[in-house]
Amino acid sequence: MTDGSDDIQALIALMARLPGLGPRSARRVVLQLIRRRGGQMAQLAALMERVAQNSRECLTCGNITDRDTCAICTDPARATGEICVVEDVADLWALERAGAFRGRYHVLGGTLSALDEIGPEDLGIPALIDRIARDRISEVILALNATVEGQTTAHYIADALEGSGIAITGLAQGVPIGGELDYLDDGTISAALRARRRI
Amino acid sequence: MTDGSDDIQALIALMARLPGLGPRSARRVVLQLIRRRGGQMAQLAALMERVAQNSRECLTCGNITDRDTCAICTDPARATGEICVVEDVADLWALERAGAFRGRYHVLGGTLSALDEIGPEDLGIPALIDRIARDRISEVILALNATVEGQTTAHYIADALEGSGIAITGLAQGVPIGGELDYLDDGTISAALRARRRI
Repeated sequence: MTDGSDDIQALIALMARLPGLGPRSARRVVLQLIRRRGGQMAQLAALMERVAQNSRECLTCGNITDRDTCAICTDPARATGEICVVEDVADLWALERAGAFRGRYHVLGGTLSALDEIGPEDLGIPALIDRIARDRISEVILALNATVEGQTTAHYIADALEGSGIAITGLAQGVPIGGELDYLDDGTISAALRARRRI
Repeated sequence: MTDGSDDIQALIALMARLPGLGPRSARRVVLQLIRRRGGQMAQLAALMERVAQNSRECLTCGNITDRDTCAICTDPARATGEICVVEDVADLWALERAGAFRGRYHVLGGTLSALDEIGPEDLGIPALIDRIARDRISEVILALNATVEGQTTAHYIADALEGSGIAITGLAQGVPIGGELDYLDDGTISAALRARRRI
């Protein structure tokens, strides 16, 4: 009550549950929004309502879209024979920002995990294998995170596709562009050394 | 377009302008909201719209409220003779959380600044002085931040109230509770030493 109205308190509590925000930053955000209540806050509220109503997952690849099939899956300029498998929509966005891939995607929505009881069906891996069989795919790029979970999931998919004659590839591991050896972890240095190439 | 629909892009751009969020964290927040679009996002949108429509500044003290006069200014249990002057509503909330003050507030909405051309009128200081003359105030606590700007503003208000017979006080400066000398800045240590007291 003393912290403004109940609605403001509820708004702060809801904001504080967003990733990267805590109670203090949620209070700062809400105070700024209240200061700009006619502009920024009204705009945010309207946009959120529209996005909440219109967003859904692309029926083909799992990307977020406001149609049944996303802009990437319906773009005739993009190669249909290459599928890039990613864990999350955020990873798809990162690859699109890099602009280096001109094929199609498949979003798993997570990684295999015995502990959390996430199996191949939960990640739509059977659907991916169906899609690969149906669509005449020549290459599947497993762009999963370089974590234990990501690599376990990549190996599972590679095993499931063995014998299909499709090229299964993964992202190269090594020193990031601009990376300084002194600041890199041992695993990255070892991987970069093992995968060394002629200049 | 590749990052989801235009609405999603606009939502990310708007979120990225909130204090404490940047483009990367705005993307993470929006992705989580889209995952919880039926629950968290719809709730947030509705609350924001209500808060944007109903919030305003208390006509007496400047606190944020959904009525003309805030809950603190209308609370008969709170002392009318003590006014605590703060820079910002966030500071008022911090004092209320501490629960140590049972009087009324006055929110300046900033500090005096010759550089940014913020004068006493912009901060409602004449209104504060009127209010003090009208309301039979016995003590004005200048709870401004311990920054150069905060202390300049405090001195200006103290000067303006000189000769009124009202007690003008400021927050004590010293070692914070739980503070370790080794981690404190020199200014705080000097201030705590100058203001030392018998135990």
